[in-house]
Amino acid sequence: MTPPLQALFFDVFGTLVDWRTSIAREAEASLAPLGFRLDWLAFADAWRGEYQPAMEEIRSGRQPFCKLDTLHRRNLDAILPRFAIEGVAEAALAHLNHAWHRLDGWPDSAAGLGQLRRRFRIAPVSNGNISLMVDLARRNTFPWDAILGSEIAGDFKPKPIVYLSACAAFDLPPQACMMVAAHSHDLAAASALGLRTAHVARPNEHGPGRGETAPTVPVDFAATGLTDLAAQRAD
Amino acid sequence: MTPPLQALFFDVFGTLVDWRTSIAREAEASLAPLGFRLDWLAFADAWRGEYQPAMEEIRSGRQPFCKLDTLHRRNLDAILPRFAIEGVAEAALAHLNHAWHRLDGWPDSAAGLGQLRRRFRIAPVSNGNISLMVDLARRNTFPWDAILGSEIAGDFKPKPIVYLSACAAFDLPPQACMMVAAHSHDLAAASALGLRTAHVARPNEHGPGRGETAPTVPVDFAATGLTDLAAQRAD
Repeated sequence: MTPPLQALFFDVFGTLVDWRTSIAREAEASLAPLGFRLDWLAFADAWRGEYQPAMEEIRSGRQPFCKLDTLHRRNLDAILPRFAIEGVAEAALAHLNHAWHRLDGWPDSAAGLGQLRRRFRIAPVSNGNISLMVDLARRNTFPWDAILGSEIAGDFKPKPIVYLSACAAFDLPPQACMMVAAHSHDLAAASALGLRTAHVARPNEHGPGRGETAPTVPVDFAATGLTDLAAQRAD
Repeated sequence: MTPPLQALFFDVFGTLVDWRTSIAREAEASLAPLGFRLDWLAFADAWRGEYQPAMEEIRSGRQPFCKLDTLHRRNLDAILPRFAIEGVAEAALAHLNHAWHRLDGWPDSAAGLGQLRRRFRIAPVSNGNISLMVDLARRNTFPWDAILGSEIAGDFKPKPIVYLSACAAFDLPPQACMMVAAHSHDLAAASALGLRTAHVARPNEHGPGRGETAPTVPVDFAATGLTDLAAQRAD
């Protein structure tokens, strides 16, 4: 018998926040005043492009776990030469790296989380570190019950321990938890462990028309946004 | 130069919630219908009396870390014979053990936390586990930014790692953090690591007139409650 659903876990980058246009805006705000002119969206894509390879170094055991902030900085340093960016002071680079703490939510994220929290415990299960999740929550009014995810687990999704440590923190079996994400690979990993899954379409995550409009794996719910998901759960 | 204060960490049992009358109420609600008659406040005191010795087994390294829920159950099983309580079904004992998730806040706790959160990141740094902290927060409207404390650290206060892992989770040096507690020994341990400290008087924690009315160690702030602390910080 399936236990009742008690907790919802959320992917954050892409699912709840629009990292691409936020990073482009923040990069321009940091670097344009220094005289740099470049394609800021391409810069955001390049920075994000280093994300999975950097985490794979840790998931594979080749590097010890560290906060995503540290990986973001490593990745930033790696892409700067590609855009001919040099001579930027350390304080400005640190501020730019913190751009990931200043991402804006999709329009429905805060309202949907607020509605879902009335019925379920909610927590991010993101690869972002705790302080990053806290800053995004304060900026966007995400009403988390707790910050779970990579820093609690000491590894990165889609490694099973990240999902399972979140269930364990809430004293729940995976079957009582649901992963909510805009990425089918995230949902597939959660589903393999017994969690329920909800897909949220974010068709513009990687640019207009370049995001998942529908899941490519079986899911329990497919929604167009978080308020839509909340409405489906109210049925 | 002292960095600006950015985060407040809170003790919970006794400081934010009135464990004694809540546990007495919950014990009576669980056991009186089964025919047991006893001094419910004495029962609460006895249960809480096992708290420090049980944690000391773990702090000392004699036992591996486990959630406080597990210790609470071990302690419950230990005191039941003293009150001649026997033959209670497992489900009823599990529900009773969960009484620690159903504690009521002191009247000023939620309002004070809400005021303080406008200016600072706030998190519990308690010996309670994450799910316990989440349930108390949902019950009492404690607006935490994150749940830090023993389960993140894998040890119990006053071990240094509990305070230091909370600072690290927020990317802050201890000097930018303040521990808030009704217990001088908790504040002394935090202060020794460089955290600032605020004492909150809870004169009735262990019964009328049986709580700390003032700190017995030097502190940065001494308050009569959380709204008083928020008012002092607004100066």
